[in-house]
Parts: sequence; C-alpha cells; structure tokens
Amino acid sequence: MNPLEKYQGLYLPELKKVDEKILSLSKGRAGLISQLVAHIISSGGKRLRPVFVILSSKLCGNESGFHIDMSACVELLHTATLFHDDVVDESKMRRGSKTANELWGNSASVLVGDFLLAQSFIIMAEIGNNEIIDLLSKTSSKITEGEVKQLMHKSDITISYDDYIEIVTSKTAELFAACCRVGGVLAGVGEAQKKALEDFGRSLGIAFQIADDALDYSASSKKIGKKTGDDFREGKATLPIIHTYQNSDDAVKRQLEGMFDLPSKSRGAEKFGQVRKLLLAKDSIEHTMKISQGYVTKAKEALEIFADSEYKRAMLELLDFCVNRKY
Amino acid sequence: MNPLEKYQGLYLPELKKVDEKILSLSKGRAGLISQLVAHIISSGGKRLRPVFVILSSKLCGNESGFHIDMSACVELLHTATLFHDDVVDESKMRRGSKTANELWGNSASVLVGDFLLAQSFIIMAEIGNNEIIDLLSKTSSKITEGEVKQLMHKSDITISYDDYIEIVTSKTAELFAACCRVGGVLAGVGEAQKKALEDFGRSLGIAFQIADDALDYSASSKKIGKKTGDDFREGKATLPIIHTYQNSDDAVKRQLEGMFDLPSKSRGAEKFGQVRKLLLAKDSIEHTMKISQGYVTKAKEALEIFADSEYKRAMLELLDFCVNRKY
Repeated sequence: MNPLEKYQGLYLPELKKVDEKILSLSKGRAGLISQLVAHIISSGGKRLRPVFVILSSKLCGNESGFHIDMSACVELLHTATLFHDDVVDESKMRRGSKTANELWGNSASVLVGDFLLAQSFIIMAEIGNNEIIDLLSKTSSKITEGEVKQLMHKSDITISYDDYIEIVTSKTAELFAACCRVGGVLAGVGEAQKKALEDFGRSLGIAFQIADDALDYSASSKKIGKKTGDDFREGKATLPIIHTYQNSDDAVKRQLEGMFDLPSKSRGAEKFGQVRKLLLAKDSIEHTMKISQGYVTKAKEALEIFADSEYKRAMLELLDFCVNRKY
Repeated sequence: MNPLEKYQGLYLPELKKVDEKILSLSKGRAGLISQLVAHIISSGGKRLRPVFVILSSKLCGNESGFHIDMSACVELLHTATLFHDDVVDESKMRRGSKTANELWGNSASVLVGDFLLAQSFIIMAEIGNNEIIDLLSKTSSKITEGEVKQLMHKSDITISYDDYIEIVTSKTAELFAACCRVGGVLAGVGEAQKKALEDFGRSLGIAFQIADDALDYSASSKKIGKKTGDDFREGKATLPIIHTYQNSDDAVKRQLEGMFDLPSKSRGAEKFGQVRKLLLAKDSIEHTMKISQGYVTKAKEALEIFADSEYKRAMLELLDFCVNRKY
C-alpha cells in the first residue's frame, strides 16, 4: 500500500471538500470556464500540494477550517500555471488526458488560467491573512521567473548545473515550500517551525522535479500519463542531458548540440532512442536520481525539529513516494 | 490643449514615480522580463488607469504615499491583461508599436503577463489593505470572465445588446471602477463616496470601450496606433456590427453572417470596405457613439455628490476626452 493510500484518513475528507470548493467556483460562470475546470478536476492528479497544506497544518496542531480554503487556493494557483505551461510547451497530453489547450485551444487555456489565478487571490483575500498573501504573491512571481528562465534556456544544453537547479527551485519547489509554510502560518507556530516546513517543502519540490526530469527519459508513456521524451522534444535542458553533455568528449557534445538545434518536430522517437543510448553510457539517469536523493535527505533533516507524530510520518513517507514513483 | 496636458500638474509627478516603480520591479530579473517591461513602458500609452487612481484619491483628500504604489499596481494588472489579450487576439500592433507576442513570441507574453500579475499582488500585499486585495482580486476575475465570454461569442453577430454590454463592462469597465474606488479607499472616505467613484469609473469604462469599438470602424490606422478593422478581422461582435445586423433585412443579415463565418485572414481590406458601407447605411457608428454618450452622462451624474474642485473638473474633462478622442 503506497503512503497516499496508507495515510488517506489524515487528509481525504478535507481533499473532497477542496474539490467541491474548486468546482463551486466555476458554477454559473461562462461555459468555457466550467468546462475547463471540470476537465482538470476529473482528470485527477494526486493533489500533492493540498495534501501538504493539510498535513503541515495538522502537524502544527491547526484546527481552523482555513486549511481547506488554502488547499483549494494553492491547487488553483498550481492549475493556472499548468494551463499556461501547456500553452508554452505546446503539450498535448497531461495525466493521461488531452490537455485543455489541445481540446479548447490556447486562448481558452490562457484566459481560464488567469481566471483560476484570480480565484486563488480571492480566497486569500477572504482569509485575510497578510502573511499568506505576501508569501503566495511572491511565490507566484518566482514560479513565472522560473518559467521565463527555462524559456530563455530552451535548447541550451550548455546551461550550468546551478542555473538548472535555480529553474527547478523557482518553477516547482517554491510552491511546495509555500504550501508547507502555509500550514505553519495557519497554525500560528513560531518562525523556526515555519522555516523548517518551508525548507522541507523546497527540498521535496527540488527532489520531485529532478526525479520527474529523470522519469522523462526512463518511464514508459502509459505509466507516467505523458509521453516519455516530452522534455527532449520540447528542448528542455534537464539534468540527465546536462550530465551527459558535461561528461562527453567534443564529438558527442557536437552531436548533442546538433540534436537540440533541430526544430522540435525533428526530435522524434529515432533521435530520442539515440540520446537515451548516450545517457545510459554515462549513467546520467542514475546520477540524476542520486542528486534527487540528496534533496530527499535535506528534506528529512528539515523536519527533525518536529516530534514524531502520524502527520510527520505521513509527510516523510510521502516524500519518498513522490520522488521514487515510477509513474 | 487637451485635459491630459491641461491638468498634468495634478498627476504627472506621481506618474513618473509609477513608471520608475514598474521599471524597478524588472531590475535584476531574467532578461526577457526586463525587455518586455521596458518595451511596454517605452511604448507609452496614456496611463489612464493610474491617472484615475491618483485623481480619485486626491479628490477625496488622500495624502498617503500609497496612491503611487496602487497606480503601479493597477497598471501592472492592466498590462498583464494586454499581454494575454494580444496572444488571444493574435494582435501584431498596439499603440503604434509591434506587440510583445509579435516580437518575443506567445510564450514570453503569457509568462511575463503572469509575472506582472504576480507583481501587482505583491504590491497589494505590501500595502496590506484587505479591502483593496478583495476588490482587485475580484476585478481581476471579472476581467477574465469578460474575456472568456468574448471568446465564446467570437464571430457571433447574433449576440444580444445586453450580452455585449456585459462583456464590455467586465473586460474594460470593472478595472476603471476599481481604480476610482481605490482612490476613495486609500483616503478612507465613506461608502457613499466610494460607491460614487466606482459608478463613475464603471460608466466611464463602458463609454470608453464602446467608443473604442466605434473607432475601430472609423479611425485611420495611423492615429489609433492599431489597424482599423482589427475587431472585424478578429471576429469580435461589437456594437457597430450588432446594430447594423439587428436593423438589416434578411438578405443583409445572411451577408454579414457569411462574412463572420470566414476564417479571419479572409476578412481583409475588401470585406472591411463592404461592411463599412453597410454600417454607414444604418448610421451604426453614430448610434454607437450615442450609446457611449449615454454612459458619459451617467458617469457625470455619479460625481455630483462631490463638491467642485480642480480634481473633479479634471476627472470630468478627462472623461469627455477619453470617449471623444479620435485616436
């Protein structure tokens, strides 16, 4: 039994209310809004960010009802970025379903993404906690900065390891950091505990994204719900490629550069097979997973200041699960 | 001398600080962010929304420094929607310059728009006034709802007058309403005055957008800074077309429907000439301007509760100027 199932008693009742809250926001709105929101809710997803808001707040003893609203808030913010990312990446599949941009077009995805972002700030205004508004607005800014940097480094496999980590941190990890910190804020704990939760979330987010980048070169497309090789085709310079590039001789470097100079439609299955062979020769996927595990360790250390509890155990086991999932 | 020049002593010193504030937000950020922000600042624009924040707050006696930050905030929110609208509409020109999506691509426009939106909420969090966060987050939601409804009614010239007014109100007027109300909120006046300012802004915004829709069928492209006929080519069902359609016989209705069923690239200069003739025959541009003037009257009435002052005169003259501009 995976930890999402094992610990569902700790968060599932709340998570149902989160889905209800998100669906209710689209009621009575323009038809396209309802359709896209229903699509994203029904296509599932693990709701990892709400789960960490709920577990963090309960770990700190929060019993206010706000953790449900805040869970909806962060999921809305996350979903808004997914809609926009899929437009930027021209993605066709996500979580095993066609993407919103594929089904309804880019315009609908851009505008409904904006709608969801606005809804997330409406929820924050309702809660009226200025620390949370400050945190989430800055997080939202960091996410877009990460996305912009990723766009600027598109097809740039000479990108440094540090720049790669910076992009991963901004585009993925800062939201996990905020989710966990919000739990502490809602419970009214001190700065040391809020900082610990934030550090846990950030390291978890980095580990999660790096593992995801490894999966894109290793998983089968049926399991991951997106086509393996997406990052390669989209020209994203992720750690497996960066590691191979940095550890290759000039001839292989030129070969890799040549592949990433191609238009994306030319980086198909054949080229993907070639690049995978180069990655396997340098153990780059294994290396990538090792780096990811380093952040798992950092995340675990961050939670050490909390006494043992069911919530803490759930967070630690979910951390391992997120990073080691094979799908 | 137009009222923007005549009254510039009332707002120009603040407006310079608003531009500085916006430029400073992009300093040290990813290069694409600085480039797009510099582009939008240098391409000018009348900064009408900041001007109305400043004048409204001064009308109510506000002397706090927050009207500058709030002016930057609403301009950022407005600019974010422009970036996204240009992607949705596939616009190539705005304010006489190439659009950001034309120069840097859709992806950059989507992401930098998101960045600007996040910055506007960061400013609100800094100011820490919950009434403002509530107002602007709801306004942001209404804007996207208006844009979505407009997208759903694309090429639908059978749209009702009420639906048209609803779209215009949401996508354009609600932000003007919020700008004017914010002035009252910053000054700490009572609900009656805040409501009056909000009503003024909303009626002004509706009048402004309707006049803009008339201009798209009448102005020369050099003056307006965008190509006349943009709305027609993009399949937007605006009041001039709606009026002609509703007042035409079946044969002309079929002719108009046929034009709007075409792909946008087929609605070129020749078709635009044909449709203009139909509009002129029904006095539809004149009718549209008359409807716009009705909202100008409503806006003026809303300000009646305020005693005469230089600020009030500036707002009333700017109202006429916004609506009757020929460019």
